[in-house]
Parts: sequence; C-alpha cells; structure tokens
Amino acid sequence: MRERMVVAFFIIVFILGAFLSSAYSVDISDATQSCIECHSSVTPGIVGDWKRSVHAAISPEIASKKPNIERRVSAKHFPQALKTYAVGCAECHTMNAASHKDTFEHNGFNVHVVVTPKDCAVCHPVEVEEYKGNLMAHAYGNLHNNTLYQLLVKTTNGSRSYSAQGLFTSSPDLYTNADSCYYCHGTVIEIKGKVTKDTQFGEMMFPVLSGWPNHGVGRINPDSSMGSCTSCHSRHQFSIEMARKPYTCRECHKGPDVPAYAVYSVSKHANIVTSLGKHWNFKGVPWRVGKDFSAPTCAVCHISEIVDNEGEVLIKRTHKMTDRLPWRLLGLIYSHNYSRTPDTDRIKNSMGLQLPTELTGESVSSYLIDEREAELRLSKMKRVCLGCHSTSWVDGHFKRVRHSIKITDQSILTATKIIMDAWKNGICKGPSQGDSPFNEAMEKKWVEAWLFYGNSVRYAAAMAGTDYGVFQNGRWYLNKTIDELWDILIMRTLASKK
Amino acid sequence: MRERMVVAFFIIVFILGAFLSSAYSVDISDATQSCIECHSSVTPGIVGDWKRSVHAAISPEIASKKPNIERRVSAKHFPQALKTYAVGCAECHTMNAASHKDTFEHNGFNVHVVVTPKDCAVCHPVEVEEYKGNLMAHAYGNLHNNTLYQLLVKTTNGSRSYSAQGLFTSSPDLYTNADSCYYCHGTVIEIKGKVTKDTQFGEMMFPVLSGWPNHGVGRINPDSSMGSCTSCHSRHQFSIEMARKPYTCRECHKGPDVPAYAVYSVSKHANIVTSLGKHWNFKGVPWRVGKDFSAPTCAVCHISEIVDNEGEVLIKRTHKMTDRLPWRLLGLIYSHNYSRTPDTDRIKNSMGLQLPTELTGESVSSYLIDEREAELRLSKMKRVCLGCHSTSWVDGHFKRVRHSIKITDQSILTATKIIMDAWKNGICKGPSQGDSPFNEAMEKKWVEAWLFYGNSVRYAAAMAGTDYGVFQNGRWYLNKTIDELWDILIMRTLASKK
Amino acid sequence: MRERMVVAFFIIVFILGAFLSSAYSVDISDATQSCIECHSSVTPGIVGDWKRSVHAAISPEIASKKPNIERRVSAKHFPQALKTYAVGCAECHTMNAASHKDTFEHNGFNVHVVVTPKDCAVCHPVEVEEYKGNLMAHAYGNLHNNTLYQLLVKTTNGSRSYSAQGLFTSSPDLYTNADSCYYCHGTVIEIKGKVTKDTQFGEMMFPVLSGWPNHGVGRINPDSSMGSCTSCHSRHQFSIEMARKPYTCRECHKGPDVPAYAVYSVSKHANIVTSLGKHWNFKGVPWRVGKDFSAPTCAVCHISEIVDNEGEVLIKRTHKMTDRLPWRLLGLIYSHNYSRTPDTDRIKNSMGLQLPTELTGESVSSYLIDEREAELRLSKMKRVCLGCHSTSWVDGHFKRVRHSIKITDQSILTATKIIMDAWKNGICKGPSQGDSPFNEAMEKKWVEAWLFYGNSVRYAAAMAGTDYGVFQNGRWYLNKTIDELWDILIMRTLASKK
Repeated sequence: MRERMVVAFFIIVFILGAFLSSAYSVDISDATQSCIECHSSVTPGIVGDWKRSVHAAISPEIASKKPNIERRVSAKHFPQALKTYAVGCAECHTMNAASHKDTFEHNGFNVHVVVTPKDCAVCHPVEVEEYKGNLMAHAYGNLHNNTLYQLLVKTTNGSRSYSAQGLFTSSPDLYTNADSCYYCHGTVIEIKGKVTKDTQFGEMMFPVLSGWPNHGVGRINPDSSMGSCTSCHSRHQFSIEMARKPYTCRECHKGPDVPAYAVYSVSKHANIVTSLGKHWNFKGVPWRVGKDFSAPTCAVCHISEIVDNEGEVLIKRTHKMTDRLPWRLLGLIYSHNYSRTPDTDRIKNSMGLQLPTELTGESVSSYLIDEREAELRLSKMKRVCLGCHSTSWVDGHFKRVRHSIKITDQSILTATKIIMDAWKNGICKGPSQGDSPFNEAMEKKWVEAWLFYGNSVRYAAAMAGTDYGVFQNGRWYLNKTIDELWDILIMRTLASKK
Repeated sequence: MRERMVVAFFIIVFILGAFLSSAYSVDISDATQSCIECHSSVTPGIVGDWKRSVHAAISPEIASKKPNIERRVSAKHFPQALKTYAVGCAECHTMNAASHKDTFEHNGFNVHVVVTPKDCAVCHPVEVEEYKGNLMAHAYGNLHNNTLYQLLVKTTNGSRSYSAQGLFTSSPDLYTNADSCYYCHGTVIEIKGKVTKDTQFGEMMFPVLSGWPNHGVGRINPDSSMGSCTSCHSRHQFSIEMARKPYTCRECHKGPDVPAYAVYSVSKHANIVTSLGKHWNFKGVPWRVGKDFSAPTCAVCHISEIVDNEGEVLIKRTHKMTDRLPWRLLGLIYSHNYSRTPDTDRIKNSMGLQLPTELTGESVSSYLIDEREAELRLSKMKRVCLGCHSTSWVDGHFKRVRHSIKITDQSILTATKIIMDAWKNGICKGPSQGDSPFNEAMEKKWVEAWLFYGNSVRYAAAMAGTDYGVFQNGRWYLNKTIDELWDILIMRTLASKK
Repeated sequence: MRERMVVAFFIIVFILGAFLSSAYSVDISDATQSCIECHSSVTPGIVGDWKRSVHAAISPEIASKKPNIERRVSAKHFPQALKTYAVGCAECHTMNAASHKDTFEHNGFNVHVVVTPKDCAVCHPVEVEEYKGNLMAHAYGNLHNNTLYQLLVKTTNGSRSYSAQGLFTSSPDLYTNADSCYYCHGTVIEIKGKVTKDTQFGEMMFPVLSGWPNHGVGRINPDSSMGSCTSCHSRHQFSIEMARKPYTCRECHKGPDVPAYAVYSVSKHANIVTSLGKHWNFKGVPWRVGKDFSAPTCAVCHISEIVDNEGEVLIKRTHKMTDRLPWRLLGLIYSHNYSRTPDTDRIKNSMGLQLPTELTGESVSSYLIDEREAELRLSKMKRVCLGCHSTSWVDGHFKRVRHSIKITDQSILTATKIIMDAWKNGICKGPSQGDSPFNEAMEKKWVEAWLFYGNSVRYAAAMAGTDYGVFQNGRWYLNKTIDELWDILIMRTLASKK
C-alpha cells in the first residue's frame, strides 16, 4: 500500500513538474491577455506557437539577470511597462506605436501589424545594430537602386508579349517583383488606406498595406527601419533552435544563383548534422562545440557564438554575417573583397556600372575592404574551423578554396572577353551600345556562366560540397558554356564576314 | 532496504507499462495468426511493421466507439467476423474474395495480393467515397484515354532507333510506361495465369500479375476499383504520421513537371516543419493547430481535418484533394478552374483536343467548375491559412498568387502564339498538320515553357517557395525559353524566305 | 518525510545512472590522456565527438567477447598494448608508426595525421579486407590511370583561356582536381617537408602534406594503403547510426552523373525512412528488420547485415559493395556486368579504349563477371528485398529493371551511332581521328545522354525513384538529347554537302 502511494506521489510530482516547466513562469500583461482572449480562437496557430516560445516564459528583467554568456537580451535597461511581463502580443505589436505608420485602433489598442527591427531592438539592441551593418539589411536598396541589376530583373521578370511588331518585354510590375526577387530581398511596405471587414466580432477597420505579406531580409518597414528579424527568427516561437538549423537559410539560398544550402547539403558537415543532429542540443546558450553539437550548420560558421567545454568563447556572436567573410563569391561576375559598407548600390566602376569589379575582373578597391581586413575576417572564420580541425587541415582547405576562386575568376574572364568581343563585333548589343548586357540569348549564356556556374564552383570549394563544383552546376557546365559562347562568337563572326 | 524495494518495484511497473503499451490490446483472429506464423520468418519486415500499426492494436468495434472527432473509421457497421479482432493480414487480404480476380488458394485461405480501396472501404467508406471524386483516382484513364497526352508520352518514353531511313521513335512499351508515367498514375493489374514456385514450405502456386508491383494513385485493380490507398498510407503500418508528412507527397511531386514538394521545401512553412517538427505530435486525431503542430505540411492544407484548441473544427477532412483547390496550375498549358468531374479525358476543346482550354488559353467552361464553386473552394483553403494568419496577410497572399498566375498564362500565350506561327509557316508540324505538337525540337522548348517553367512559377506563387519562381526553373527559364522560341521563329522564317 | 527521501534517492539513482552510462566504462591509456589534456581545449569539437563514440566506451578486449552476431570488431587477437584501453587518440594516431611516412614527433609521441584502413584493420581486419576488393578502394587509380577518363576530366576541369589564337583548354591542375573529381575519388597524400608553426603551446613542427585534407574513398595514403574509412564512418564518433543513414552516401552520390541519393529520395523507401525513421533504432547490432527498422536506407541494401526477429541472418554484412550488385549502371556509356577485379583501369576494349564495353555496347566479357556470378549477386540483393516483399513483387520489380536497362542501352546505342557518324563524316573529331571524344559541343550532348540521362533512368528503375526516370533528368531529356544530336548530324551533313 505504502509503495503504491509512493509511486503515485512520484508520478504526481513528475506530472506537476512537466506541467510547471511548460506553464508560464511570468505574468502576462493585461493587454496581451486581451489579445489572447480573441486570438486563441481567431488565430490559434500563432497563439499556440507563441506559448511554446521563450518570450512567453520569461520577462526581460529575468532574462537580463542571467550571466553574460547565457544572456539572450542585450539591452541593459527596459521600459518599465515591459520589464516584468512575458513578451507577448501587445508588447511587440503596440511597441513604438508613434513611429509606426501602420498603427491602427484595434479593440482599444494602438496596434501595428508589422513588427520591425526597431521594435526588437528594445530588448535586442546589439543584434539589431549589428544587423544594420549587414548586407542583408540593405538587400532592397542594393537591388532596387542598382540600375544594372534592374536590367537583370527586367529580363528575368518582364513578361513577354507577341505582336506584329515583334516580341516585347514589359517592365516587371510590382506584384511580380514582390513574388520573386523582392520576396527575399524585401518589399517596401506602405499604407494605402483603410478597409472595413466583417469579422466574427463584428465590423472592424484594418490598414491596407502594399508589399504585404513579406518577411524579406531587407524589407522597408512602415517605421522606416530596414529588415525583418522574422526572416530567420520565424514568428511566433522565435526559436533559436530553428535559426540555428540550415533549413532557415534554405528558403532564400537554394536556387542556382545562390546555392549555399544546396552545396552545404552534400558536404560532410551536412551529413553529420542530418544524421546525428537529433541527439544534439540546438537550444543551449552558450552553445558548446563537442558537447551541444559536433558539426556546423550555417549559423555555426556565420553567426553563432561558440564556446568550448570550459566555457571559453571560440568566436563571438555576430548578426553582421560578413564579419567572418573576406570575399563575396555570389551574385556577381567575379569574386571580390566585400564592400566596406553594406549599401553596395553606391559602388561604381570605371565604366560607371554599379559593380565592385571592372568587367575584366579588377576590383574597384576604393569601395572594398582591404587585404588586412579580409585576412582578419578569414582568421575569424578559421577560429570556427579550428574548433574541430587542425591548422594543417584548415590551411589546406583554404589554400584550395583560394585556388578554385582564382581559376573560376579566370574562366569567367574568358567568358566575358568573348561577350565583349561579341559586343564589339555587333553580334549582340551591350552597355557600350547603350543596351542591357543581359537580354539577348548569347548574353544569357554569359550570365549563366557566372551567376549560376561560377558561383556554384566557388561555393562548392568554400563549403566542401563538391558535387556542385563538378557535374551539378559546376565546372562541367561552366566550361561547356564557355565553349558554347566561343562557338557562337566564331560562327556569327564567320557568318557576318560572308 | 525498503527504499530499494520501492525503487525496484517502480522500475518493474515502468517496464511492464512500457511492455503493455506496445503489446496487442485486442485479439488477433485465428486466420491472421496463421499468416503470422509463417510470415514472421518469411517477410519479417512487414510483420514487424504491422505490429507497430494502429490496425494491430485496436478492433473496428472499439475504434468505432470513439467520439466522432477522434474516430478514424467512418463505417457505422462492420461485418461480424471483423468486428472484434485486430485488423490483420487475413482481414484485408481475404476481404471481398469473390470480387478479386487475383484471389488464389494459399494454405487453406482464399488470399488476394492486391488490397484495394474497395477492401479499405469496409471500415473507411467515407474516405474511399471522397477519393473516388478525386482526380487522382482517375489518374490512369486521364492519361491513358487522352490521345493528346499519349503523344506526349510517346515523345517522352518512345525509344529511338537509328537506321539508314533515319531516326525512328517507337511507341513506348508497357514495361517502360509502368516504370515511368504509370508508376505514379497507376498501372492496370491483370491476372496472366499461375506459376508454381519452390518456397521454404514446399511448392506453392501463385497468380501471375501484369502491371505489378505498383502503388500508383489511379491503379486499376483486379476488383475493378481505382486507386491505391497505399500510395500515401504505406504498408503495413498505415501510419497517419507518415501520411501527414511531406515526404509522402515527394514521391510523385518533385520533378520539374509537378514540383510541389520541391517548391514547398524552400518555403517558410517547410522551414518550420523541418526545424521544429520533431517536437510535434503527428499522430493526434483530432489534429490541433498550435498545439500538435504549428506549420502546414502538404496534408494540412489539402486533406487533414484541423481543429483549434477548443476542439472547434477549422476545416473538415477530405480525401478529394480538389475540395480546397479552385484552380489547376500543373500539367497543362494554361491554368484553369478545375474540372467538374474527376475524369478529365472526356473534356474536348473547340479543336477537338482533350484539353480544358483552347490553345490560346480560353477555358472550355462547360467542363469546368464555375467561379462560384472556385471561390467556395478558395474560401476553404483560406480557412486553413486563417488558423495562423490574419485576413490581410491571406488576402495579400492570394492577390499576388492570382496575379502571378495571370502573368504566367499571358507569357505562355506568347510562347504558344510563336509555336502556332511556326506551325502555320511550316517551320514545324502541329495538330492542324496532323502531327504531334510535342515531337520536334522547337515544340519541346514550348512544352518545357509551360510544363516545367510556367507550372513552377505558379506553384512558387501559391506555396511561397519563391526560388522556384525566379532562377530555379522559374521566370528566368520561362522568359529565356520564350526568347529562344522567338529567335528560332525569326531565324527559320528568314531562312525560308532566302 | 519518508516519501520525500525515497523520491530524492530515486532521483539520485537516476542521475547517477545517466552519468555512469555516458561516462567511460574503460580505462583510457596514458598516451590518450596526454592528447586529451591539450586537445580538449585546442580542438574541443572532436574530443567531445570522440567521447560520445563507442571507441571511448569499450576496449577491444571487451568488444571481442561479445557474441558473434553482436561483434563489431573482427580481429581475434589484439596487440597487448591496445587490448584493455579505450580506442583513443593515441591508439589510432600512433598505430603502425613505422609504415607511416606522415609520422612526426609531437610532444613526445610519434604521431601521424592520416589514419588509414591499415590502422583500422588492427581491430577490423575483415571489413578492411572486404573493402580492398571494393571498386571504391580503387577509385583513385580507376580514374587517374584511365587515359580515356582523363580526357573527360580535362574537358570538365581544364580552365579556358582566350587569346588571339583562340580558346585554349589547360590541363587541369592538381588543386582543381583535388577540389573536384578527386575529392570523392581520393587524392594522393604525400609528405612535402616540414613546417614550424606558432601554437598556444609554443613553436611546433608539423609535416606538410599534399592532397590534404581529403577523405575520398580511394585515397592513396602515406602508408601506401588505399581508401579512407572516414568517408562513411565520419570522425571522431565513427557512428554506425550515421553510416547507416542515407545522408552519408549523399555526399558523393547526388550529382547528375551518379544520382543514387537523389533517386532514392523520391522512392517509397526514402519516404518511409524520412517519415518514420526517428522512431527506429539505427544503432542495433545485429540489425533486425521489422524491429529496429522497417525500410531500407542505402546501407541496408548494399552493406549491412540484416537479421530477422529470431536472429536468423537474412544477409551477411559486406564492405565490398559490389557483392550484391550484378550490373554497373553508372558512370559509363552502357550498363554491363561488374568488373571481375576492382581495378578497372586494366580493362581494354577492341579499340584499345579502357572501357568495359565496345563503343557499340558489347561487353568486353573477359574482364567482367559472368552471368552465373551476376545472378548470384542479384540473388543476394533479392534476399534483402524478400525481408519485406513477396517473390512476385520482387520478380516483377527486377523484370522491369532489366527491361529499362535494356531499352536505355538501346537508346544510348542510337546516340552513339549518331556521334560515330559525326566522327566519320568529319562533323567532329573522335578517337579514330586521334582526338578526345568528349571535348566538342556535339560530343558533350552525347556525354550528357549517357552520363546524366541514361544513368538516371537506370537508377530510377533500380531504386524505384521514378521521377528521375521521366522528367527529372530521365527519359524526357535522354530522348530530347538524341533528337538534338540527330538534328545536328542532319543539319551539318546537309551544310557540308552544299
């Protein structure tokens, strides 16, 4: 009898413990309580999601009292009203109401739809500040304000119509752009009036937003801030586990123009993560290499703070992802040192093109970080590698990476010389002829050479996802495309001489 | 001493509990017991698989007594012989023996190899009935009885031979078709005699089946029923967890012609599911959004019954997947409202082609659902979205989807006008010239424009997997292909005028 | 009060148990202890990884006392010095020091960087011996010593430069090759001197290795052995769970030239593994079908020892992967029976090309296994299938596989006849003209026909990943490419007659 009681008692303790650990450990503000009252039936998915979040289980004040190495809030002081409550609906969606053009009256609250980095910065100012220096925060302007890139957008997205006069390419409309390039780069969100809707609680007024929905990395928000923390820290759980997993990056980094996830997926690193990751602790702060995890995801190399078993920091957290990156490998004709500042649309080469290199590959150095800074960044990345690898392994790897980048740039130079000859010989029309360098069949082959295949080879080298350096959009296609460009040049040149 | 005994007792209780929970909770029929006796050594994999199934742990009678919202059997009455036993080998494989042409005598039982929807309908009649109205159930006939599609099958699958007379394309043989198109669409399974085999239990007679193995969605079964529940509910665990995961749909929906899974995999939804799904409950019936799961898999949007925290049904379960789909986006030249009935091979356009649109894009409306029905279906889909998203998010999303579909259809119209001109000008031979519209090089470019790239853009818009709308088989390739078609038209037209 | 004490006691027992189960159960040698002292701060990732390994938890002596069916060491006797200690850093990295050209003095130990199959063979001799007979062990020489393949490497990897004289293809350099083909095939690791480096423990001397890092399957090691066990058994956990998961094979088998993982990923098998694998036991030795797992990963079919519920062995473990494979489907022009010996570079066809078939498809039988051996191997593979499937299913499957292989070979013959005519007619230059058969535009189409599309169709048939047999690099592309080759042949032949 006694034993049974003991067992029963033990089971009760267990259940209570489990219950308590998932229940709120902090008060919820009255405002948030009001939101939840309706929204747990209106949008049960996100309410449930939030309930599983750290935001729901801790107040900024308690969070800020953790030892430095465990802290996930970087603010030192918090507004009195927020301090002691869970970070709930109202805390974020009524924050900074005045600066939010999307604020509207909603059941007695001044609510805004779009939560922005400025809002997040109340508790996470260091991360938001770092992110401002990140290329990604400028992804809208870097694309939109670069007239050369806009020519690429036009030939990619502009719809074709066919008439007696010929084939006509329209300028791509806003919806199409929002559904393609700007889906990841970020849209401009503007308030376009108000609309009254019938809801289960009667008629209600809502703002009409253009460019919405969007969670692009460089989104231009109604409070003028840039970016969207939810690109990676998905609403409404804002799970660090999720941000640390590579599937988060996959959303924008899988296509042939920027195949980072694809390349990673065939690396030894991904092999380990996918096979054994289920046994790891993706939530630990600090994040201990060899204890919590034993192979890198994207976050490990590019963002996360990593500590060793004694709690020594191997590398500091950064939300300026270029901090550990010396060279830009993707999206442009040639590799080059990263831009000094994150707004790359201000760069101009000697031809007046908004490119960080000349068409013949030389860097437009005045806009780019110098070799010292590049080496410093590389040394930071190497610190991550050295968590598991010896110096001879790491040095051997990067020697090969540099070589593959160099050779790829040479190959792209060959492709570019061919297209420049084609422009010169009137086979097609390029910038010097006042035309887009991207819109003719031969030019598109040239674009694929660098945008798809050159990038892919460089990425494959950098992340050891070798398939993407050989037959999967790699050297086979790169060199085949150069051969084809050459054949076209020769054939057309001969034809024009007949 | 006492404490030790308590601990020991507790551990024993634990082990017993674990054991009991995995053990059968119902009787197994004598017939099934006979099957297992041999088959646990002959085919241990599937016996073990079945033992983990719900079928092995519950009888139809007990299953049917659950509250409506938890019920997974939809029959009200069950044959007396089945009622109180686990649903085992004999229950399914001797069911409806008389109507099964594949029934054979096997160790004293009348066994059939191919379990069909008719068999499943004994316990799951509602699901089977719904599925009959599903396009998928008709996937065999919809392909096989459409003479136009058969021309596409021929140019895709027909083997090429080379002789003095030229290149010759054979009609694809049955094996090749069963190993390609009909692998997913479903084969016809017929009895082609009997064969005697040596087994570890002596000589045995088995039926010889053509078209076997196959688990295609529109399989024509030996009892004349259509479809195969095991396409998605894989033998022999028939796990609801599996059917709800996107990997089930991946089997047939990944290629460039129907890249649903591929598109999904780069969406935010897939990001959440892949990163956090391991913490979710994929087995719960009812399935509670925000509690059991917090982002959609394929099943969530297209099939599953979803309830909120209070058990209110957001959307009813359906096995007619088109119930929540207004527009068909895939596999055809233009998007269009879904067919009224699932047998699409009966559709004819004004040219007599079995197509739901004219070659110039106008819908053949008499065969298709009207706008009212389309809006009704869309509103069902939106109910799923609204489980997590606000109306402004959902409306914004679908506004963009409609726009991308419209623009894509316009682009495809441009591509089609070019190929129609090519047919008219004798550059290649199309339907009006009594020839296949798919078998020449230029025509294949046109096919890729709609079958691969147009589809991909529409899917990418619908499921927010944007990579597939831009550089990954998206607008870049769609528009490049149109440009190439144009170049061919101009070049050949000029050449013919010389 | 009493109950509380009992609970407290129970919790302590639990914690102790958890601690003990993860702690070392064997002594660590003094030498390894020395390594760990520094390396737990120098490379904490791999030390932590190793601590989770079986190597850290068991000594060879204890491991060897397990019943045969559970044994994971195959040696009968072990060097005295190793016997009773955990298999730690020193045990592997100082093993066989004399035969290791990469041995160097490191803090009083003779350490080598590259652990080789010869080192692993001390405890796992059977596996290493089997692997020696595996094609993979010879992957370096099979590529490097085949002059025909080297022409394919050249056109794939050789960088293009552009000058007044024309387009020039360089011979690919060592770094480029190590970063592409030889990344998977394996590099040659040689000692190129010594280097002194500043470390946190002062100046230290290290060997300089060429071809490093690399873990290719046919790596040529500094002790002259071939291969790298860590290709699949990744350092330093050497997890059997990982080797059994398909992500391990993905690293080298995903690209269009050898899409085994890609094809698998759209199979029903992968669907089951991905959806339900999280509930399985990937660590069990023996590995019980139906109990530990219920659908195959790559390892199940090609390597693992599988037992049924009674512990009866369905199929023996093999590290000679070709043991269960009758036909080679990949990487070559036509399918053919596997080579008798794993060093395929010794094969010569009647034209003197190092190919297992003539250009017209006939097997060079004297080098290949005969039909009896092929059938024996097929019967081994079928034993795996029969763990879950009936004979009629399995026979039906392989009938279709054979047919698809045959038809694909016929199609490739058609493609090859076209290219041979092109060579004969001077449209391009092939082997008979003393030129590479791979380096011209038309030839590259021919290469893609067999290396990408033909392979893909055959793989799709064999592994039931049908998408890859139809529109995803399958019959659509195979037949389209043949049509294009034909068009080129006709067009050029006509042009040359003008």
